[in-house]
Amino acid sequence: MDVQFINPVLKALTEVLSTMARLEVKPGKVIKKERDEAVSGKNVTGLMSMANDEAIASIALTFTDPVILEIANKMLPEPKHSVDGMVIDLVGELANMVMGGAKRNLEEEGYAFNLSLPTVIMGSDYLVAHKTNAPILVVPFKTRQGNFFVEASYERIGKTRG
Amino acid sequence: MDVQFINPVLKALTEVLSTMARLEVKPGKVIKKERDEAVSGKNVTGLMSMANDEAIASIALTFTDPVILEIANKMLPEPKHSVDGMVIDLVGELANMVMGGAKRNLEEEGYAFNLSLPTVIMGSDYLVAHKTNAPILVVPFKTRQGNFFVEASYERIGKTRG
Repeated sequence: MDVQFINPVLKALTEVLSTMARLEVKPGKVIKKERDEAVSGKNVTGLMSMANDEAIASIALTFTDPVILEIANKMLPEPKHSVDGMVIDLVGELANMVMGGAKRNLEEEGYAFNLSLPTVIMGSDYLVAHKTNAPILVVPFKTRQGNFFVEASYERIGKTRG
Repeated sequence: MDVQFINPVLKALTEVLSTMARLEVKPGKVIKKERDEAVSGKNVTGLMSMANDEAIASIALTFTDPVILEIANKMLPEPKHSVDGMVIDLVGELANMVMGGAKRNLEEEGYAFNLSLPTVIMGSDYLVAHKTNAPILVVPFKTRQGNFFVEASYERIGKTRG
């Protein structure tokens, strides 16, 4: 299932943005990312993991300021011109909703997981610390305000950590 | 100098908190941290790195909400009851000031570095992604509101990455 984890994540992400932000987005091409490759430029990232006895799954949603402000202004009651506390909470909540959606998808296939709490990272050229040691897949999305991207990683732990 | 990097960091941190927040703090015992050991519980972390052709240095300051609010209320003009955008910026700025102090210290000894921009991480049980691959030293500090801690890591890169 390792590579297939990306599909429920992409499905949940497009659904969340369509439902919550009336934003229709389409995933670009999946690429593999090196673990020590920094997010380039100024960004904000929502990071979530979930785990069971056999696996850890992790996702990260990374936005530039203009893109997250576009999304925030479609989701929040008051207009936002800068990334403040409410926008930061929203980034964590988006990651939470996307992982929640992926979790429900996997549960239908018989995999149960416990969700972590979201972590938010803000800065320039930072590393995103996924809790997995598996490869990280990256998928870009386009919006009028610029690109954003989702990272997903799925590690089986039964044998290596048990 | 790898282990000695911790000393200018501790010096800068105690000076910054004393000068900017009128908070007198003393470092506890230095311990070594595993790279995949998560920050435990709900916290906010300011992360900074600096580099030159031969080395990368990284520090992280990690606070629980009550501790950073105590510091924020001594440094900011308006009272803060929760970790909002201004408090988050303050965490990045504290990391920036501490690394700036350590940088000046090292420059007096003939080592020049370029500072990164600060990154801020918020969440529960997250990993802090230092840009170094060297050991991470952790030093706890006590305040009335609880403990906070600083992590420092210093990696020579001339031979392994050059």
